Amino acid sequence: MSASREELIRQRLITLESLTPELEGSAVISVEGLMIASRLPDTLTDDLMASMSAAMLALGERIAHDLRRGELSQVVIRGGLGYVLLMAVNENAVLTALASEEAKLGLVFLDMKQAASDLRQFL
Amino acid sequence: MSASREELIRQRLITLESLTPELEGSAVISVEGLMIASRLPDTLTDDLMASMSAAMLALGERIAHDLRRGELSQVVIRGGLGYVLLMAVNENAVLTALASEEAKLGLVFLDMKQAASDLRQFL
Repeated sequence: MSASREELIRQRLITLESLTPELEGSAVISVEGLMIASRLPDTLTDDLMASMSAAMLALGERIAHDLRRGELSQVVIRGGLGYVLLMAVNENAVLTALASEEAKLGLVFLDMKQAASDLRQFL
Repeated sequence: MSASREELIRQRLITLESLTPELEGSAVISVEGLMIASRLPDTLTDDLMASMSAAMLALGERIAHDLRRGELSQVVIRGGLGYVLLMAVNENAVLTALASEEAKLGLVFLDMKQAASDLRQFL
């Protein structure tokens, strides 16, 4: 990938975070689990975020299929300190975001959906 | 487990489903992945529901911890045809529900939270 395309994707992540102050990080990851672009807090590595996203995608797809929920579109993991949110971008990539516990999920998903739509041109 | 305790748990699942018409099934599963009580559509088996719930719980706990979201409380998997919803009951068990795409998640989680609270006395 050329540096400029990665930069355009990172720029779109910056825009997403500016719309949603409860976001603490975001990343675009290939369905194979490789990092494409990220904006993460210092405490997290690209490798960790990418591997967790890929595992969540694989299990989410399996569960959605086997429990007859159709094709996977989103995963939410809620902990006492906030959320991990995963959304499919297209057949190549997913968008994963980390949100604080104050996040309003309906709004965050609207913003992520727009971001995923914009990111499709690069992926 | 005595039959009567299983019956009391199943009865609480029936009450949950009566409050929430968008629910298509529900189950209480031990954290080891063994079915405790279930109400499932004919197309799904206890073994499948239990194993998917245990896998979702294990990965959700790992992701919530590693991505610094605190202790796991809920997982949502959204597909084109509906949702799989998982909520911790206590350190022994989880409550998993299947909902149609029309479900209002905020309401469903309120009802599941009450059910989980009621179920604690049996688990």
